[in-house]
Amino acid sequence: MCQNHGVAYISPGVVEVQQIEYPKLALGDRKCEHGVILQIVSTNICGSDQHMVRGRTTAPAGLVLGHEITGLVIEAGRDVEFIKEGDLVSVPFNIACGRCRNCKAGQTGICLNVNPGRAGAAYGYVDMGGWVGGQAEYVMVPYADFNLLKFPDKDQAMAKIRDLTLLSDIFPTGYHGAVMAGVGPGSIVYVAGAGPVGLACAVSCHLLGAAVVIVGDMIPERLEQARSFGCETIDLRNETPLADQIAQIVGVPEVDSAVDCVGFEAKGHGAGADVEQPANVLNAAMTITRAGGSIGIPGLYVTGDPGAKEKAAQEGSLSIRIGLGWAKSHSFFTGQTPVMKYHRQLMNAILYDKVQIAKAVNVEVISLDKAPQGYQDFDKGAAKKFVIDPHGLIPN
Amino acid sequence: MCQNHGVAYISPGVVEVQQIEYPKLALGDRKCEHGVILQIVSTNICGSDQHMVRGRTTAPAGLVLGHEITGLVIEAGRDVEFIKEGDLVSVPFNIACGRCRNCKAGQTGICLNVNPGRAGAAYGYVDMGGWVGGQAEYVMVPYADFNLLKFPDKDQAMAKIRDLTLLSDIFPTGYHGAVMAGVGPGSIVYVAGAGPVGLACAVSCHLLGAAVVIVGDMIPERLEQARSFGCETIDLRNETPLADQIAQIVGVPEVDSAVDCVGFEAKGHGAGADVEQPANVLNAAMTITRAGGSIGIPGLYVTGDPGAKEKAAQEGSLSIRIGLGWAKSHSFFTGQTPVMKYHRQLMNAILYDKVQIAKAVNVEVISLDKAPQGYQDFDKGAAKKFVIDPHGLIPN
Amino acid sequence: MCQNHGVAYISPGVVEVQQIEYPKLALGDRKCEHGVILQIVSTNICGSDQHMVRGRTTAPAGLVLGHEITGLVIEAGRDVEFIKEGDLVSVPFNIACGRCRNCKAGQTGICLNVNPGRAGAAYGYVDMGGWVGGQAEYVMVPYADFNLLKFPDKDQAMAKIRDLTLLSDIFPTGYHGAVMAGVGPGSIVYVAGAGPVGLACAVSCHLLGAAVVIVGDMIPERLEQARSFGCETIDLRNETPLADQIAQIVGVPEVDSAVDCVGFEAKGHGAGADVEQPANVLNAAMTITRAGGSIGIPGLYVTGDPGAKEKAAQEGSLSIRIGLGWAKSHSFFTGQTPVMKYHRQLMNAILYDKVQIAKAVNVEVISLDKAPQGYQDFDKGAAKKFVIDPHGLIPN
Amino acid sequence: MCQNHGVAYISPGVVEVQQIEYPKLALGDRKCEHGVILQIVSTNICGSDQHMVRGRTTAPAGLVLGHEITGLVIEAGRDVEFIKEGDLVSVPFNIACGRCRNCKAGQTGICLNVNPGRAGAAYGYVDMGGWVGGQAEYVMVPYADFNLLKFPDKDQAMAKIRDLTLLSDIFPTGYHGAVMAGVGPGSIVYVAGAGPVGLACAVSCHLLGAAVVIVGDMIPERLEQARSFGCETIDLRNETPLADQIAQIVGVPEVDSAVDCVGFEAKGHGAGADVEQPANVLNAAMTITRAGGSIGIPGLYVTGDPGAKEKAAQEGSLSIRIGLGWAKSHSFFTGQTPVMKYHRQLMNAILYDKVQIAKAVNVEVISLDKAPQGYQDFDKGAAKKFVIDPHGLIPN
Repeated sequence: MCQNHGVAYISPGVVEVQQIEYPKLALGDRKCEHGVILQIVSTNICGSDQHMVRGRTTAPAGLVLGHEITGLVIEAGRDVEFIKEGDLVSVPFNIACGRCRNCKAGQTGICLNVNPGRAGAAYGYVDMGGWVGGQAEYVMVPYADFNLLKFPDKDQAMAKIRDLTLLSDIFPTGYHGAVMAGVGPGSIVYVAGAGPVGLACAVSCHLLGAAVVIVGDMIPERLEQARSFGCETIDLRNETPLADQIAQIVGVPEVDSAVDCVGFEAKGHGAGADVEQPANVLNAAMTITRAGGSIGIPGLYVTGDPGAKEKAAQEGSLSIRIGLGWAKSHSFFTGQTPVMKYHRQLMNAILYDKVQIAKAVNVEVISLDKAPQGYQDFDKGAAKKFVIDPHGLIPN
Repeated sequence: MCQNHGVAYISPGVVEVQQIEYPKLALGDRKCEHGVILQIVSTNICGSDQHMVRGRTTAPAGLVLGHEITGLVIEAGRDVEFIKEGDLVSVPFNIACGRCRNCKAGQTGICLNVNPGRAGAAYGYVDMGGWVGGQAEYVMVPYADFNLLKFPDKDQAMAKIRDLTLLSDIFPTGYHGAVMAGVGPGSIVYVAGAGPVGLACAVSCHLLGAAVVIVGDMIPERLEQARSFGCETIDLRNETPLADQIAQIVGVPEVDSAVDCVGFEAKGHGAGADVEQPANVLNAAMTITRAGGSIGIPGLYVTGDPGAKEKAAQEGSLSIRIGLGWAKSHSFFTGQTPVMKYHRQLMNAILYDKVQIAKAVNVEVISLDKAPQGYQDFDKGAAKKFVIDPHGLIPN
Repeated sequence: MCQNHGVAYISPGVVEVQQIEYPKLALGDRKCEHGVILQIVSTNICGSDQHMVRGRTTAPAGLVLGHEITGLVIEAGRDVEFIKEGDLVSVPFNIACGRCRNCKAGQTGICLNVNPGRAGAAYGYVDMGGWVGGQAEYVMVPYADFNLLKFPDKDQAMAKIRDLTLLSDIFPTGYHGAVMAGVGPGSIVYVAGAGPVGLACAVSCHLLGAAVVIVGDMIPERLEQARSFGCETIDLRNETPLADQIAQIVGVPEVDSAVDCVGFEAKGHGAGADVEQPANVLNAAMTITRAGGSIGIPGLYVTGDPGAKEKAAQEGSLSIRIGLGWAKSHSFFTGQTPVMKYHRQLMNAILYDKVQIAKAVNVEVISLDKAPQGYQDFDKGAAKKFVIDPHGLIPN
Repeated sequence: MCQNHGVAYISPGVVEVQQIEYPKLALGDRKCEHGVILQIVSTNICGSDQHMVRGRTTAPAGLVLGHEITGLVIEAGRDVEFIKEGDLVSVPFNIACGRCRNCKAGQTGICLNVNPGRAGAAYGYVDMGGWVGGQAEYVMVPYADFNLLKFPDKDQAMAKIRDLTLLSDIFPTGYHGAVMAGVGPGSIVYVAGAGPVGLACAVSCHLLGAAVVIVGDMIPERLEQARSFGCETIDLRNETPLADQIAQIVGVPEVDSAVDCVGFEAKGHGAGADVEQPANVLNAAMTITRAGGSIGIPGLYVTGDPGAKEKAAQEGSLSIRIGLGWAKSHSFFTGQTPVMKYHRQLMNAILYDKVQIAKAVNVEVISLDKAPQGYQDFDKGAAKKFVIDPHGLIPN
């Protein structure tokens, strides 16, 4: 039980499964008697991991990746009171103390006590507090009573583990984007991006009662995936302006709400579809969102992007048509999703068969040693969400 | 075109189709150049009409009934600017001026300018401002630019008219109850009453993403109707306490949210299922709603009920366990639904096939001369929503 | 340091200062390593203590009273990470674990983990979980990192301790009532009751920007206190109907918002001002609140009241004119105030001299042995808020 | 009575009082029987008028300026039902039909029926629908029943007309900025800009209960004005970074909320205080606002700015550090203020002496022929709000 292996970032484009330290109830000198050790049941590869793996960040070699974790509690610190050994739990990707001003206000994405460098932390992520990642066999989760969501019935949960594993990040993240954008019954929505977060957002829009969900991307397989659960789609390689493509679907060149599930690695449109244009999704969202509408921005924008083409973008400044948004009284909502705000309700939606999120994002379960291959396939645009099963516990 | 017929209240238990006056752009001395005259395409019988027909109110003989109206604009007053002759429109049951403090705040159910007696008005209803009802061939709708919802495409609308006719009252009313009760994705909800409003509320809960919708009633056919679109049901004639029946369904004896779609004509439970107990639904709602939950009360409670069994109830006072609600930090939301707040979005949900409301409430289209029979059948508890088609315009 | 004295309930009308046990980091068998021991700097007598002392509850003899506590941390359990020995802190009267569904949603008044009997707990209160009260020299506060609000500067705080001591209950409670009632800039508000909570509510209404704050009570000294900081007042012993008295002040017989700071020990009006009428304040609130308004109910309503005059009230049922509220689309908000939602912001308002709450509620500091006299004076309607200073730490 | 004079834009830097047409109940071919003609009692010069007068827009010569209007109804169209001749009224600067989707939702700043070019209209403003401005003796106000706010008592209103005249724009605009930024009791706020809107925002922050209001500007007289009603101030010509100056005031280098009352004509800081840096205020706001905070942006950003120094800014694109905001989970709220959402409540705050807005913004009443001088003085940074009194009706 003292063995542990995990996926480590090595260099741009390269990750590797390595033997890593078995977790302790501590982070360096910081004791974590409020923490638990999990045997990991499932841990997913995320699009934001790719930012590191592509070398777009200052992530150091050897960083153990993984912030989408579901597991079995095998050891609990002495100060853990309500979570018990044997519990099967979902781990929100954002680490939160449950005791600071922001956590008390439900803003667990910007906890003030878990990252000396800034507000907010995560497992296995550069500049996010140094907590060890969970694409591994075992991991330590601090503040366990606060952070963890216990599944009410283990057998029932294992039968739906492909869906429940998405509660640690992308389902709440897509959902948060939709909620911030004001999506509700009858809404007409544009979702930028058909990667896993974009698809999870589209599923969330349907769950929230949207009348029409339009998803835009450049990869035909991803758009096909969106159509499989009732979305309309727009192929951004097409030269027709986005607004016109929307008008072809809903009769007018605008939507009620837009969600940016792409972030700073955005590209152009039509002939520019291969060219980096980091503000392109934001500017497009203002162009097509009706006056008075809201724009949710779960897609990541960074404070600095050393790998960007343009100098301003390297320093984190993007050329944004803010006057267009102002003229339309738009509102903009940014930031890490506070997973805890949503995961219990979304768990219920899964457990009572209200939503089929695993199918929508096309979950593929792989073993831990296949993780490097998963990273490569995902980077090439595979219309799949890779879920690592490090202990072979997930039933077929 | 100067002929008109409508359904009039005659005496307790008796309604009659009579020749009535062709509408003018006026209400008595009050000019209504802001109004339009509609050829009525569909007009529904409502549970709240039954309060009058059962003699539980002071409605005078000859009152023309009907506040759920959909129609074709055939004449527009000179001050109507945006609605045009030929438009097919849904009429919110609450009449609103669009110019008072409450209307400006979206509270069209308590407009200050359309009823000298109190805030709020409706078509064809006692104490609601004297506006002529719409279970007729023609009706006048004031403040047409403000009140009316125009369907974007007439042919498309006629093809879905059984659904769209429910936008004038029960769909928004059931929806409002759900929204007030805080229903959203993953919610577990109890809906009291499986009449048309209760069923519309249950549909709305599903549209809002609820995980489990439990409907309680005493009429097996109505419960069967609820099960037909995925609800759980509770037969209130069963002696088992409500909380225990809920626990049998969801494992705990409580729900997140409760909606009272019954109102002041509530009865008891089990052996008391035939006995009037006007506060029974409210007290039951407090019993089964979790601490911190909300209770939506679209069901009508009256300021006085001359026909009530108990003296206090005659004066409008009910014996309510408010301390129970207080101990659980409950919130309570009452009043007429402001239809306009919701009808556009719900229309979209219908037009884009997101919801099948007509099927859920079991719409049955009848001719105007069958209206008296419809009233009788509905009063006996038919699991149907009767929609009158006065001109034979509704396709089979 | 192992000595401790506290105020104990003995029998109806009688409280006594007794030697009591020095606190441990435990509640019976339940370990509380997450707790701290406080040297109490100030602890206030509350109107809701009077319910017990008057014998209106099942509080047992010997119960140590007191849930309004401010103190100095003198010992911290091993699981306490952010609160330190020497910190000067305000204790919310509601005990909360910070780890359950309700706490995570900010509803700390109905925590699920601190009271086996029901949701929600408090110090020194019957049926509230058995936690020892704080009208004493020392007290134990569990879940200290979560519950406690640390004052940023001890000297500054001691200089304003008469104001800051009110953060543990009545200032947030009055404020919560105002917020629930929808009070904001320009509001016209009626506050029922000019006891400390009513006065704190009136102060809060002013802080929230209300244009007119009208306070009603039967005790001239309390009304005088309300006038001292700019409120209008209504003497309820006056036979003129409440609505007419309001019209004399603001020109119309209604207000935008009403707050019930009285609760179930309400009395009548005019000649009935000495007669218990437990639903009187609620029914009056519906009478005078405008259509569309909200009614905040911080005043306590109980699930059972053995000492009530009427049988229904003994069982916790009150005769409420719910139909009147329904006709006006009123909303009703009940329950214990979640102090933590508000105390930090209200602390800032005190520290930056935005509000003078101690003066408004007329704080009088007394020693611990004067507590029995304080209870008696308060019960007689003294227009004062008694603050016990058990260690003689409060400067004059 | 058929004479009329108004302030017309002539060329960059030049305005002139001219004889203009007496208003009709029409806009070109569009009949406005829903409109009224006002004898103007007061009409204010606004900072956004300066954008036109400085030649930063495509405003044509001859455009009659003025969108801040208060007046006496002297003629009412036949469709006007509730507003009467003789009423003294405040005119929201945004023209709204009261009948479109946006108006029904309270978003009167983006009405869909009053400007063929885009959502939203105003009096006397380029690209805002062609409605004639009100820096004149008489003006036509369309949709009068919907748009106008009637003062309850004319004598009382004339006595406070210097305050009430600010309800047409800057008081609601400053207030909206504060509300969007989440300002409430206990907030610590930074307001960028101490022009009339900035000062009105600062007053609004105090009205909303803010604990500390910090105002930044480069003009000492304007900062002095801010200090006159209890604000802290920051002189932006000072080289010390903004965050450090804030830390000197509140002990930490951040605020809860920030409001941008400057807009696209922003300049730099310290040595750059004379250099145009259109994104400077937005980027500063992200720098100093705490994680989780909101940023209200009532300051105008334009879709194109032909007079800008940089090419991107000419096309309306600004270089914004969006990644910084994203890392802090900021929310951003833009657009014209929907005055109607706030003016009634703010009127009450004025009438009941809760707020002294005229004094705070330093109102100076001038005659119509002094308007050109007022424009010049205001452009030079006079710490005044100029109110034109075209008929000599305002008492000294």
